[in-house]
Amino acid sequence: MTSAQLTVAQVMVTVATSSWKSGVGRASKLFAGMTDEQLMEPVAPGRNRPIYLLGHLTAIHDSMHPLLGFGERLHPELDEIFVKQPDRAVAALPSTADLTTYWTVVNDALWQKIEALSPEEWVERHTAVSEEDFAKTPTRNRLSVLLSRTNHLSFHVGQLILAPK
Amino acid sequence: MTSAQLTVAQVMVTVATSSWKSGVGRASKLFAGMTDEQLMEPVAPGRNRPIYLLGHLTAIHDSMHPLLGFGERLHPELDEIFVKQPDRAVAALPSTADLTTYWTVVNDALWQKIEALSPEEWVERHTAVSEEDFAKTPTRNRLSVLLSRTNHLSFHVGQLILAPK
Repeated sequence: MTSAQLTVAQVMVTVATSSWKSGVGRASKLFAGMTDEQLMEPVAPGRNRPIYLLGHLTAIHDSMHPLLGFGERLHPELDEIFVKQPDRAVAALPSTADLTTYWTVVNDALWQKIEALSPEEWVERHTAVSEEDFAKTPTRNRLSVLLSRTNHLSFHVGQLILAPK
Repeated sequence: MTSAQLTVAQVMVTVATSSWKSGVGRASKLFAGMTDEQLMEPVAPGRNRPIYLLGHLTAIHDSMHPLLGFGERLHPELDEIFVKQPDRAVAALPSTADLTTYWTVVNDALWQKIEALSPEEWVERHTAVSEEDFAKTPTRNRLSVLLSRTNHLSFHVGQLILAPK
């Protein structure tokens, strides 16, 4: 590609990855600003508690490692409590300190890989789609996973800010 | 560009615009599924009502017309009630029927313009940034507006699904 052409796709990648990064930063700030008591209080009557959303978002972000072809997950054990089951189905959660560490470690590891990808790699298929299906639908690529997970994060951040102060 | 090079940037645009479109579709479905009573019930105690979120999202999407260089807004009058002031500050809202029409008309008009833009046009500056600042920060482009507004939409959709059934 010429540099002008490279710029179009590279600038797009920068915009998309910055949007992801700023979403993670916003959520980190919200979680860090909550007391243990606030983390245990549902965001609305009968709805998820922030502590559950912390584990849920960590699990979903962790699952992006294999989905984007970055390698193994760091904390697959989180799925049992925070993805397969709703909040309050499991009484004994990991400690807030542990969950906060997982959140940071998972997002940091992911970011290292995310910022290293080239524009061409962003439009390669993600691992949940077969080569055959990808040939038919080339939008089922890594970038679509990133944007979809960025929206998933915004969705839950919108709920987190409703948490009783 | 060669066709392979065009594909990288064009596929990225398709992924980003599809993400926007699916967010709008999801919100439309949520609003359409609510009774008048549900639209008037806050999503959580003391928080925004769905009717306010309907007007708010319509106003923000409408403001994307000038921001993306697509021309004049269709309903600038919505800002006074749904952007400049919080929910319940103004007693007399437009009717649900009118707001629903504005939502549809604004999003349809926006989509016509969105789907017509080329990859190169997506990385051009948005109108809230000066040419000078854009030269320094080329990520302040139309695509960044689209992703940011898609996240804004997801943020409020996350709240809408908490609305009492």
